[in-house]
Amino acid sequence: MILNSDISVPAGSAGPADPSDGRGMAARGLLRSRLSCQAFDPRATLSRAAIEGLIGAAVQAPSAFNLQNWRFVVAHSPNSRSRLKPAAYGQEKITDAAAVVIVVGIEPVSDAFSALMNRDEEDGRLPASERERLDRQIGRSYSDPCAGKAEAIRSASLAAMTLLLAAEADGIAACPMSGFDPAEVARAFALAAGETPVLLVALGRNADPAQVQKQRRPVSAVSSFA
Amino acid sequence: MILNSDISVPAGSAGPADPSDGRGMAARGLLRSRLSCQAFDPRATLSRAAIEGLIGAAVQAPSAFNLQNWRFVVAHSPNSRSRLKPAAYGQEKITDAAAVVIVVGIEPVSDAFSALMNRDEEDGRLPASERERLDRQIGRSYSDPCAGKAEAIRSASLAAMTLLLAAEADGIAACPMSGFDPAEVARAFALAAGETPVLLVALGRNADPAQVQKQRRPVSAVSSFA
Repeated sequence: MILNSDISVPAGSAGPADPSDGRGMAARGLLRSRLSCQAFDPRATLSRAAIEGLIGAAVQAPSAFNLQNWRFVVAHSPNSRSRLKPAAYGQEKITDAAAVVIVVGIEPVSDAFSALMNRDEEDGRLPASERERLDRQIGRSYSDPCAGKAEAIRSASLAAMTLLLAAEADGIAACPMSGFDPAEVARAFALAAGETPVLLVALGRNADPAQVQKQRRPVSAVSSFA
Repeated sequence: MILNSDISVPAGSAGPADPSDGRGMAARGLLRSRLSCQAFDPRATLSRAAIEGLIGAAVQAPSAFNLQNWRFVVAHSPNSRSRLKPAAYGQEKITDAAAVVIVVGIEPVSDAFSALMNRDEEDGRLPASERERLDRQIGRSYSDPCAGKAEAIRSASLAAMTLLLAAEADGIAACPMSGFDPAEVARAFALAAGETPVLLVALGRNADPAQVQKQRRPVSAVSSFA
């Protein structure tokens, strides 16, 4: 936990939010305890409400211009997980898990993303003036397709990490999987042009309660200060 | 919070971890309360120990084959933040923040990543047999440079999201920034070939304690079940 001495502000101004309310400690424990489930109990099932709860957390992730350029396609039924499995090189976790969330990133310059903004306008979430401003920002920032693709991967990954931590908070075992053929996943689940499957998140119940987190490199090996 | 009825397991087997221990609730509150700081108090400073604490949380993020193909370059001194600012299109947050973490993704097939594994071997963290296995997996999975680049963005984003939530847990204001010129950032901080700056995370103290989180699309607008 951070010490009060770690953030220094001039006398007279308010200090940082007090992390000693227990929330900070609890959250830090969560970050430490999360692990990528290596074997799911194939008998466990997961309700649609529970999965929607995790997606509700995932959409709290940040994104450039608050674009929220992501979508969540849930392979929930045994049939749809069987359909997904060959695109994930036959990994057993796909069918052993209770559900697999395909976290999809959307390129900001694409019909798919325009459709999302159209719906925002129709539903009254996006005033026309704001839409024009957003269209200009998107045109300026993502005219290079590489930048658009990078933003799709970045946004979807930020959302996926939030989903993983929400699962840990809710007592649901989860495993992020990047071992899949993006084109095959896109085909099997009819993703639109400009939509990229970024990560599969398998959800369910850990068959091995004794599993421990893999080791990490020390901070000193991966950080430098300038 | 998940209800016990949301995960269903056959009678006789152990249930999911009990989320009613308060940790789950606290973590869910954290996911909801996190926001991207829009204005930093330029008077606040942040200790190196506090930043290292956040990086210590970030490295707990998952990565394919546990590659941990990321690195954290911290623009901490006023000088180095001034050096970063033009590469981030002159955004004031870079110099108003107390520090900016450049979250760097590393392509698995690169001299930069080989160097990281070499150091793992030297430091005794990576046995030679394991190194051979990892080299084969990397060769199989990332021979396509696009796949390697995507993995760099994905891994670094997962770590960045974890860092953002650790900051929230520690009472430190944070703002993820993707508005920068990757080539300019790489040049200004001497990143190696195969290293990509994926996200800047500005850290400090929020100058506007009344700031609220931006609205999100409802879950129903961004999810589908199959």
